[in-house]
Amino acid sequence: MRVTTIHGTKDIHLEERPAPTIDAPTEAIIKVVAACICGSDLWPYRGENEITPGDPIGHEIVGVVEEVGSDVRSFKPGDFVIVPFCHSDNTCPHCQVGMTSGCQNIGFTQGGQGEYAKVHQAEGTLVKTDGMPDESLIPSLLTLSDVMATGWHAAVASQVRPGSTAVVVGDGAVGLCGVLAAAELGAERVIAMSRHESRQKLAMEFGATDIVAERGEEGEQQILELTGGVGADSVLECVGTDQSMRTAFSIARPGSTVGFVGVPHGVKLPVRRMFAHNVGLAGGMAPVRAYLPDLLERTLSGAIDPGKVFDMTLPLDDVAEGYRAMDERRAIKVLLKP
Amino acid sequence: MRVTTIHGTKDIHLEERPAPTIDAPTEAIIKVVAACICGSDLWPYRGENEITPGDPIGHEIVGVVEEVGSDVRSFKPGDFVIVPFCHSDNTCPHCQVGMTSGCQNIGFTQGGQGEYAKVHQAEGTLVKTDGMPDESLIPSLLTLSDVMATGWHAAVASQVRPGSTAVVVGDGAVGLCGVLAAAELGAERVIAMSRHESRQKLAMEFGATDIVAERGEEGEQQILELTGGVGADSVLECVGTDQSMRTAFSIARPGSTVGFVGVPHGVKLPVRRMFAHNVGLAGGMAPVRAYLPDLLERTLSGAIDPGKVFDMTLPLDDVAEGYRAMDERRAIKVLLKP
Repeated sequence: MRVTTIHGTKDIHLEERPAPTIDAPTEAIIKVVAACICGSDLWPYRGENEITPGDPIGHEIVGVVEEVGSDVRSFKPGDFVIVPFCHSDNTCPHCQVGMTSGCQNIGFTQGGQGEYAKVHQAEGTLVKTDGMPDESLIPSLLTLSDVMATGWHAAVASQVRPGSTAVVVGDGAVGLCGVLAAAELGAERVIAMSRHESRQKLAMEFGATDIVAERGEEGEQQILELTGGVGADSVLECVGTDQSMRTAFSIARPGSTVGFVGVPHGVKLPVRRMFAHNVGLAGGMAPVRAYLPDLLERTLSGAIDPGKVFDMTLPLDDVAEGYRAMDERRAIKVLLKP
Repeated sequence: MRVTTIHGTKDIHLEERPAPTIDAPTEAIIKVVAACICGSDLWPYRGENEITPGDPIGHEIVGVVEEVGSDVRSFKPGDFVIVPFCHSDNTCPHCQVGMTSGCQNIGFTQGGQGEYAKVHQAEGTLVKTDGMPDESLIPSLLTLSDVMATGWHAAVASQVRPGSTAVVVGDGAVGLCGVLAAAELGAERVIAMSRHESRQKLAMEFGATDIVAERGEEGEQQILELTGGVGADSVLECVGTDQSMRTAFSIARPGSTVGFVGVPHGVKLPVRRMFAHNVGLAGGMAPVRAYLPDLLERTLSGAIDPGKVFDMTLPLDDVAEGYRAMDERRAIKVLLKP
């Protein structure tokens, strides 16, 4: 099969590799219908994460079940499924309280930017639709495998409440999904920090009430002015850098929570400021599976349309161009068709 | 008046100074009935916080109103009051959501280990009792000015729920009050980490169900064994060192929250671990005033008896001995009588 591999900084290949096979009774093989490139894939692409040259890459997919192991009872070949990027048994003590990304039998989708992918705990991980979904729904369903669920996690972790004021730091696809999540969870005011016109526009479509284009201290000052000097009730930190985290803590009102979902890179948390201002931090790797039934319902009902984050669609053969487009911020998020 | 001052490392004096006077209409002067020494007073005592030699010290008091400014309408000379260590107007946007320790007009009790102390925002800060309380109640009421409210804040911030498992890191007076708070909030299991017999005993009186005497990795291993490998639903971090914070994050189950109330000293938060395990951090300087009505009711009803943390009572004249006793861990907490 064809699968995307990474060989070094900005060095993406599409290679022929053996398709994955069932090696344990809990597994399933998925024929990928649509995949995409994640903001977190750009860390290794830019040389900021260590890699082993030749590593398969990609973890966001929807597809059709090809084959299942003997312990998988709820899914059969032909089922259309959404595949959370982290796999969970959905029975361990952590899964039972909804923290599926802390599963004691955790696994991850690897090489999802390819034709077939393996799911380690298929029974506890997959969520299927009733029959094959309409082609127009595929982009939105695909976002439920990671990016929309991750934006949702930022909103939940930062305790967005009806009537509150939320600020979203970061205008990547996760940040934009965070805007959508905060609005859907009832925030009265959703302030998106974004410098890029196309992203500002999508943020407004997703429910942002205000845009702050400035960064750093100037941006922080703007947020304080917009909130009457009070600061945000919730801050969704959707980047993962030290600068974005500092901004998040600078604009969070005393007693509020920063919800963080960007994999932290070089972040030093301002612990004394957190203490003095009673600003908490919560979040991490999104428990996608736990959110999926709710998010699927909201997507199918049309309440949310997160698929709008895809502003470029490419055949899998052009995956390297997809990485370039996202790296150069020519695209918000790239959908790949095997 | 006599007031305690700090002049350097382990150098505590009792000096004659002018009594405080009303300088603003929001202020009140309190004649101190009982004061005490806080674990946080030991940081400057041990030379770990910068001081200006001669600084008055002490911030935990109960007393009788001596004089009030013209804006203070709810209190009059003779009222017995509990004085939260941080003063708040109780009307600003932060106070309105209960975050009184983030008040836009914040002030602090200073020189509380003395005969008189000033409260900057008396109307919004003080809470009075109906008449003079019985002498036997004074120690428990005194704890409501800081230490019990701070232990309570750790339990609230770490989201202790009925039926849950809470671990308390730190067996100082705050940690012991944290045990009491977790039990009072309904935790089914309260594990106290303590190496000292007298503190273990008080922890059990306060509702601890298990004691772990080991520290570091050995202690963490014990907690994991006690919780069937799952970890704690809530961790109350009541010390403030890097070691205690690391322990807290090592024993917190995925999706849980560490509630921290020890002023952080040299703490580097393990942000990547927090992200990978979805363990949040919340807490800080306790919003004492917001908790006070509830805690006062629980104290007066006999539901809690936090005054037991005082195992030494000294006349104010012997304040230096009180510091020595706490520094050498001969006393858990020292009550001072002016």
